[in-house]
Amino acid sequence: MRFIVNTKGRNDIIDITPQVAQIIENSNIQEGVALVFVPGSTVAITAIEYENGVIKDLKKILEKIAPENDNYEHHKRWGDHNGAAHIKSALLGADFMVPIEKGQLALGRWQQIVLIDFDERPRQREVIVKILSEQNKKS
Amino acid sequence: MRFIVNTKGRNDIIDITPQVAQIIENSNIQEGVALVFVPGSTVAITAIEYENGVIKDLKKILEKIAPENDNYEHHKRWGDHNGAAHIKSALLGADFMVPIEKGQLALGRWQQIVLIDFDERPRQREVIVKILSEQNKKS
Amino acid sequence: MRFIVNTKGRNDIIDITPQVAQIIENSNIQEGVALVFVPGSTVAITAIEYENGVIKDLKKILEKIAPENDNYEHHKRWGDHNGAAHIKSALLGADFMVPIEKGQLALGRWQQIVLIDFDERPRQREVIVKILSEQNKKS
Repeated sequence: MRFIVNTKGRNDIIDITPQVAQIIENSNIQEGVALVFVPGSTVAITAIEYENGVIKDLKKILEKIAPENDNYEHHKRWGDHNGAAHIKSALLGADFMVPIEKGQLALGRWQQIVLIDFDERPRQREVIVKILSEQNKKS
Repeated sequence: MRFIVNTKGRNDIIDITPQVAQIIENSNIQEGVALVFVPGSTVAITAIEYENGVIKDLKKILEKIAPENDNYEHHKRWGDHNGAAHIKSALLGADFMVPIEKGQLALGRWQQIVLIDFDERPRQREVIVKILSEQNKKS
Repeated sequence: MRFIVNTKGRNDIIDITPQVAQIIENSNIQEGVALVFVPGSTVAITAIEYENGVIKDLKKILEKIAPENDNYEHHKRWGDHNGAAHIKSALLGADFMVPIEKGQLALGRWQQIVLIDFDERPRQREVIVKILSEQNKKS
């Protein structure tokens, strides 16, 4: 399954838990795992408490790790300006796995699945959800 | 399957390889993948050589990335003090996937699965292990 | 399935997408997920645009996060010099999940799967690929 997320870019952090939960519900799976994945090299998937303060804090620390306005080698190569975006995507990862128990996402109470778009401009992203069923192999 | 881990918080790093290995053994799975996941937004799962020196080094570098005593926006919002914990959890991730080969975890010799609790106080954490079977689709 | 990668160590970043794609093709799987995993505690798997400039930028930022020549506690313990390698491996992770759609890796256009060897010397690494099939559970 795929769904679309429109982002503003520049470290835009978007809660995609409702869309993932809906896909799980529609699948009728009871026990298993969902892969949440975003194709793209300037974007990531992770989990965080989706609270305004934490969101600002995360952006600030990501900016400290890989500042947007540094002189990246990547900029010289292509003339674009999203070098920091590539770094942050590689550090956080485009993949996130979440368990499904009794037909529900087994997340913590304050743990939301988020897409972070590091690109320097608004983007339309497609998120892929793959559902894997757990089999009881115990004899 | 779930198992419980009691932590001291404050970057406590705990080797959970034995518990995961036991669950794999009990499952009788031969070839597949295990998802090791911790519900919670101030905790993470990763792998590292579980050696005292490395453990100290990792804590030091995580403290450099997101110092516990910075002024986080999250603190203003809720009056709590675990802003750094949320950041570190989002950076490291609550999910870890490990292959199973011939009924065993296919880890490196010095590679242990660890839970890191970033919260500012002792916590009781539940770790979820989901087991997925590899199927030979080759015709 | 396993395949071998020879590295130069010292943050050597190697595009392993062709090998993973070949294994997917050989498996005849149509819809599912592949786990790409490297056993080892001084090595990682992630995705990045495999472009010379970005590769240099990533190495520079990883060196900023965990400089190779710092005084790591790990060095005192064993007399070796790869403390930074262990840290970077734990931060980036040895596991990467990628969806398979219509028999193909569902990566972004500029998104390649890479192995990064942080060790201080050339290494021969074995990469494990596990293939999981998605089942349509919808009734």
